[in-house]
Amino acid sequence: MFPDKNTIFETAKRIAPYLHRTPVLSSSEINNLTGGELYFKCENFQKAGAFKSRGATNAVFQLTDQELKAGVATHSSGNHAAALALAAKRRGIKAYIVMPENSNKVKVKAVEHYGGIITFCKPTLQAREDTLIQVIEQSGAIEIHPYNDYRIIAGQATAAFELIEDAGNPEIIIAPVGGGGLLSGTALACHYFGKGIRVIAAEPEGADDAFKSFYSGSFVPSVHPQTIADGLRTSLGTLTYPIIKDYVHEIVTVSETKIIEAMRLIWERMKIIVEPSSAVPLAAILENKIDVRGKRCGIIISGGNVDFNELPF
Amino acid sequence: MFPDKNTIFETAKRIAPYLHRTPVLSSSEINNLTGGELYFKCENFQKAGAFKSRGATNAVFQLTDQELKAGVATHSSGNHAAALALAAKRRGIKAYIVMPENSNKVKVKAVEHYGGIITFCKPTLQAREDTLIQVIEQSGAIEIHPYNDYRIIAGQATAAFELIEDAGNPEIIIAPVGGGGLLSGTALACHYFGKGIRVIAAEPEGADDAFKSFYSGSFVPSVHPQTIADGLRTSLGTLTYPIIKDYVHEIVTVSETKIIEAMRLIWERMKIIVEPSSAVPLAAILENKIDVRGKRCGIIISGGNVDFNELPF
Repeated sequence: MFPDKNTIFETAKRIAPYLHRTPVLSSSEINNLTGGELYFKCENFQKAGAFKSRGATNAVFQLTDQELKAGVATHSSGNHAAALALAAKRRGIKAYIVMPENSNKVKVKAVEHYGGIITFCKPTLQAREDTLIQVIEQSGAIEIHPYNDYRIIAGQATAAFELIEDAGNPEIIIAPVGGGGLLSGTALACHYFGKGIRVIAAEPEGADDAFKSFYSGSFVPSVHPQTIADGLRTSLGTLTYPIIKDYVHEIVTVSETKIIEAMRLIWERMKIIVEPSSAVPLAAILENKIDVRGKRCGIIISGGNVDFNELPF
Repeated sequence: MFPDKNTIFETAKRIAPYLHRTPVLSSSEINNLTGGELYFKCENFQKAGAFKSRGATNAVFQLTDQELKAGVATHSSGNHAAALALAAKRRGIKAYIVMPENSNKVKVKAVEHYGGIITFCKPTLQAREDTLIQVIEQSGAIEIHPYNDYRIIAGQATAAFELIEDAGNPEIIIAPVGGGGLLSGTALACHYFGKGIRVIAAEPEGADDAFKSFYSGSFVPSVHPQTIADGLRTSLGTLTYPIIKDYVHEIVTVSETKIIEAMRLIWERMKIIVEPSSAVPLAAILENKIDVRGKRCGIIISGGNVDFNELPF
């Protein structure tokens, strides 16, 4: 059974000592531009630079010493890898990370920085899964999936939980969607702790599997996703999809052009570094896919891990 | 007579309704790296993206309607231009800005965005001053100098005033120095509102006129400054230099390499956008010019206006 109200509440207490209570920022310029009152929950300031630290920390600190004695393992090219490595370091255990050999160098460096033990593989899902199985066989480590895990979903839910506490009860909350860990957690937090909050997901047009799954009513995998938003290229999971179907109100898609424009706008006006995935909700507003005029609207800024040598603007 | 304690206190009250109380941020990673406890006063989040809004707002809101009836004027290639244009807009008056024709496009756009009336001139100090005189003759506007003005100095002092309030009483406060408006204000605020705070200025090696003036005991102008820190290329002023001589404890210089390294470190670890000038104090720590080990140290992050198409890394 997916996380209930009390589980999310307990999760928030469990992870608090290890993480930042990230700030909720506003920009009068962006408010003027959109006509709404926007509240940005800044997970780019989170430990390891992304909301992923919430789920990873929850999973690692919920397991027993016995379960963790051989360490944790995952395959990830991105923020979950660094988040899991950092959580494992805090717990004093090993983290085995399988990364595709074409991974962003900044993200590889982050995993190394936190002491993760990296095994590189070919950049296909098959190779990632095969290599992870080998690593687990050899190490005996326990797998922590990046999103298809209720402990991860409960962890990611705490971002919206804090946003609702700190920004009052907004009328809308928008989150980006990739594998759906953040989105399903956000939807549950709004359901349990909010009052009539409309939960909207924003997804790149070039990786619109969640959009298709949501409106067709049956799971559509992400095949050859084409988007700069590198955190949003994955398919929904068997645990995240049902929650999204039941608790999310709407999914909208946005163009690459607007994602880049929104990212630049956040950098220029708010002076904070956000990665492309983080800009997808604001892009949806700028592209008139979501009408926030006269409304209080929360936005989850998912992370801030960017390779400065490969900026899209 | 330069601003006294009560003047700075009154200034803080005068400008508060128009400006942000900017946050003081810390980074456990940067603390680990430097061995100190660093408190960054984030003026990159200030209105118009820099501490300059403090002085400009104080000057504009201190003048009478009569004095302001023909508007305000200045020459500036940078943040003071945008700050003055914005303050004038808030007061409902005109701002005439003389800018060198090779000014950074982002800063020109910002001045236009706030409704400043720009006159371009050749990129020499002579041309800037001559053009400003013409603009003032024609418009009747009142000049607001970027730093050599006690109202400006009192305004800039409020950043350190807030830092001391919000971060307790640090043992050291470091500010960058260009024309000396921020530095002289910081030194006065530490003198009036702090207890035994050591005030240290950090300056690029390639624009070390303040360093030379301070240690030689007589004013040395900035000639052909060579530094990426575009806010720090100006000479000290007749009003800022005497305050700096009496109330600053130490001036150190830093290399361009360390400025760029420090800037990148702040972007990567703190996920905030700061301009090169803002990175000069941290550069001084990284270059072992200031020893912060075991000490609580405040740093004024001066601004965040960067042209993303001309990053130094």
